[in-house]
Amino acid sequence: MESTSSKPRAVVLLSGGMDSTVCAALAVRDYNPSALHISYGQRTEGREQEAFRQICERLGIRRRLMVRNDALKAIGGSALTDARLEVPEAREVIGGEVPITYVPFRNAHFLSVAVSWAEVLEADVVMIGAVQQDSSGYPDCRPEYYRAFNEVIRTGTRAGAIRIETPLIGMRKSQIVRLGLEVGAPFDLTWSCYSREDRACGVCDSCALRLRAFQNAGARDPIPYALASSAP
Amino acid sequence: MESTSSKPRAVVLLSGGMDSTVCAALAVRDYNPSALHISYGQRTEGREQEAFRQICERLGIRRRLMVRNDALKAIGGSALTDARLEVPEAREVIGGEVPITYVPFRNAHFLSVAVSWAEVLEADVVMIGAVQQDSSGYPDCRPEYYRAFNEVIRTGTRAGAIRIETPLIGMRKSQIVRLGLEVGAPFDLTWSCYSREDRACGVCDSCALRLRAFQNAGARDPIPYALASSAP
Repeated sequence: MESTSSKPRAVVLLSGGMDSTVCAALAVRDYNPSALHISYGQRTEGREQEAFRQICERLGIRRRLMVRNDALKAIGGSALTDARLEVPEAREVIGGEVPITYVPFRNAHFLSVAVSWAEVLEADVVMIGAVQQDSSGYPDCRPEYYRAFNEVIRTGTRAGAIRIETPLIGMRKSQIVRLGLEVGAPFDLTWSCYSREDRACGVCDSCALRLRAFQNAGARDPIPYALASSAP
Repeated sequence: MESTSSKPRAVVLLSGGMDSTVCAALAVRDYNPSALHISYGQRTEGREQEAFRQICERLGIRRRLMVRNDALKAIGGSALTDARLEVPEAREVIGGEVPITYVPFRNAHFLSVAVSWAEVLEADVVMIGAVQQDSSGYPDCRPEYYRAFNEVIRTGTRAGAIRIETPLIGMRKSQIVRLGLEVGAPFDLTWSCYSREDRACGVCDSCALRLRAFQNAGARDPIPYALASSAP
């Protein structure tokens, strides 16, 4: 299962959600992959770490790095890292302004770790499963953000040659489901829920986007939900 | 001493070295400042934390954040974070290629934390004491890098309006010493040495650049050195 070393090296950011898992399956297909997971004191941290390990096992990714980011929780300002703020239900947030689940400038922290690791591994590529359409409206999920970050890498690294790839950024979530099924993404091991760790809640915006994606793709979401009837 | 709240807010990255301390003194003069210190498992971590606290006290900066970054040490690849690699003496490195004290893509980690905090504090500015001339030749100390990072902020934050300021980037180190003396930077509390925590070694590239800067400025460096005769 492991990619041969004749392929170029890539670092893939793998949270354990559906998008990053499809990205990891693409990385296995196209590159010699290394998987990176970052815990940042988010509500479902432990469950996401478990998903990361299981997905790496299934996909045969042996080179892994799990690190902790203390800054995002210390800084707060998001319902994902501040227990005093409630995770809203989906219909309150999708399609509106930047929601309270936005973690300020989070993806720059993740990309920085990925690029540092890529520089030491002499990898050519960093892959991230950012999605613009059908997403929660976070500013750091837009193509222009990744174009700008590539320029930061070009000017701020030793060799300047690492590039960020965002293979899913222009896709609908339902297309991502179909692509994942094609490339063998282990959806049964993924975790998307923002608010619970035992069973996915089915009502936060992340669950709602996922359920709608499977429905629109005409596919069955293989994970159980606490509130199965909440599928849109 | 504390700036009044009518001034715009700024987050200043304060390692505790001479450049960042001059930056902090400028932040006190021009802004309502908040000081950020990041430990990343570098050799002189504890000594730098002590310098940070003392400098904030002296400058009257009350809003402070000290955070830990575990990723850079886990990734390694630098003599500053990997005890198996030796910190070279100055004459081996200054003016040559990117030296082994370069921490891969480090400043992107620091700026990411600063921008996240600035977003939550609703600050307008992030200040960093990066210096291009007379420096160790790190790629993430060049003006084009900061221009690119400003574009990442514009595209990847909620309001898009935070800007990075690098007031020292075009200065010679001797000019920075003179500026620091003018604005009351507490050089006696600063720590620049890369390799020791008791007394500055006087021979690593950071010590050598500092000693030369004070000499060229016609000023006395107020901190003691283990090898005082090593001043260039």
